Amino acid sequence: MTALETIAGGAHPGTLYGIGVGPGDVRYVTLRAAGLIRSVDIVAFFAKCGREGNARRIVAPLLSGTQPELRLEYPVTDEIPSADPGYRRAIADFYRASAETLTAELQRGRSVGLLAEGDPFFYGSFMHMWRRLEQAFPIEVVPGVTGMSGCWTRANAPITWGDDVLTVMPGTLPEAQLVERLGIADACVIMKVGRNLAKVRRAIEAAGLIERAIYVERGTMSEERVIALREHVADAGPYFAMVLIPGQGRRL
Amino acid sequence: MTALETIAGGAHPGTLYGIGVGPGDVRYVTLRAAGLIRSVDIVAFFAKCGREGNARRIVAPLLSGTQPELRLEYPVTDEIPSADPGYRRAIADFYRASAETLTAELQRGRSVGLLAEGDPFFYGSFMHMWRRLEQAFPIEVVPGVTGMSGCWTRANAPITWGDDVLTVMPGTLPEAQLVERLGIADACVIMKVGRNLAKVRRAIEAAGLIERAIYVERGTMSEERVIALREHVADAGPYFAMVLIPGQGRRL
Repeated sequence: MTALETIAGGAHPGTLYGIGVGPGDVRYVTLRAAGLIRSVDIVAFFAKCGREGNARRIVAPLLSGTQPELRLEYPVTDEIPSADPGYRRAIADFYRASAETLTAELQRGRSVGLLAEGDPFFYGSFMHMWRRLEQAFPIEVVPGVTGMSGCWTRANAPITWGDDVLTVMPGTLPEAQLVERLGIADACVIMKVGRNLAKVRRAIEAAGLIERAIYVERGTMSEERVIALREHVADAGPYFAMVLIPGQGRRL
Repeated sequence: MTALETIAGGAHPGTLYGIGVGPGDVRYVTLRAAGLIRSVDIVAFFAKCGREGNARRIVAPLLSGTQPELRLEYPVTDEIPSADPGYRRAIADFYRASAETLTAELQRGRSVGLLAEGDPFFYGSFMHMWRRLEQAFPIEVVPGVTGMSGCWTRANAPITWGDDVLTVMPGTLPEAQLVERLGIADACVIMKVGRNLAKVRRAIEAAGLIERAIYVERGTMSEERVIALREHVADAGPYFAMVLIPGQGRRL
């Protein structure tokens, strides 16, 4: 039998890798991601000020401890609403500076693995680096298990059956829009619940879906929590919180 | 450094594993899935009559060749429309018989790994086994990279930006419903395109989205094909065909 390391393969010089690290449990990292994390010259990751960085924490068991790391620290995260011009300016400056930092390493011929929670092309910060660098350097994107797959797995809740339509939306949307989208959804995932939890719950109640809604916090991580939304009384949750409304399509 | 096999872990007797095998490229199998595929007593998979079985084909490089396999062969797939009562009856009988076959192995204390393309709880046949067996046996579900993640990765098309809402729908829906859903979608994935390609293209044209639509066939597999939908003239595609309409949300 081929060793898993052989199937996973390694990194090429001067290449940027957008590495999806999955929902949280290190066992849900793909073979390709694991192979790259262990072979790139530099492991890069985004992190909130003063924190370890979620993606870095997920892959910690795969790191040797001697591999060079590049920490890209957000100037702000959810302290300011994302619609605020100050937020947009601060984040845009940060992404531009981060892309310059990555450029310098890639130009020196280093391979850089930029970790991304879940899947890199699904609501990921990596996309903002990809957009700036894809014309200049070879880039390989490694898809990952999404946070929502991790959550519905641990909630023991198959999300779509038969011809169900799945709506995935951020809890940052205005309440009226949430209610409207929920009204026509077969199955629904509400991401970025965090500070929007009270609003999300009101919208789900207004749409008559509270009995079907499941709240999942840090799905597949060690502090995971799964609870019926109607039994969850807090007005805010952590960043890694999601609400699931499983579909009710065709059972055969 | 810990060997990947150690992180992946092994199987327990008498347990059913729903193993997401990802979109097609064996490198996108997770560590946990790879560890289980190599350690379960029986590798089980669904297959279309006369074919190897898509999930079985994806993990072939991980198999020893001596491990017992259990092939569960669909009596029909897309020869009959899924709304046809004959289809429903045939598939329901098949699922019941398959659950009985798995029950017999689990009762003998065997560990069984049932392969699932993509993610087991996302439009998966595995769900119909899980529904029948979850009260009777320990079950572990291993989330996988979805087919759609594989497709948007290979299409080089980040799917959702900022506050984009993602709509995932099957191409089996009536044309009017497709048009209506497309009309309010920020980003969209249409699955199960196959024999519905002509209808799906008409719906996308009617919704004014043809310029943004990408057709992806067998994403991440060796016969992968990515093409602008407007340039794709066939009226039907294979089972593993999808149409992507990437979102246009906030770039920072």
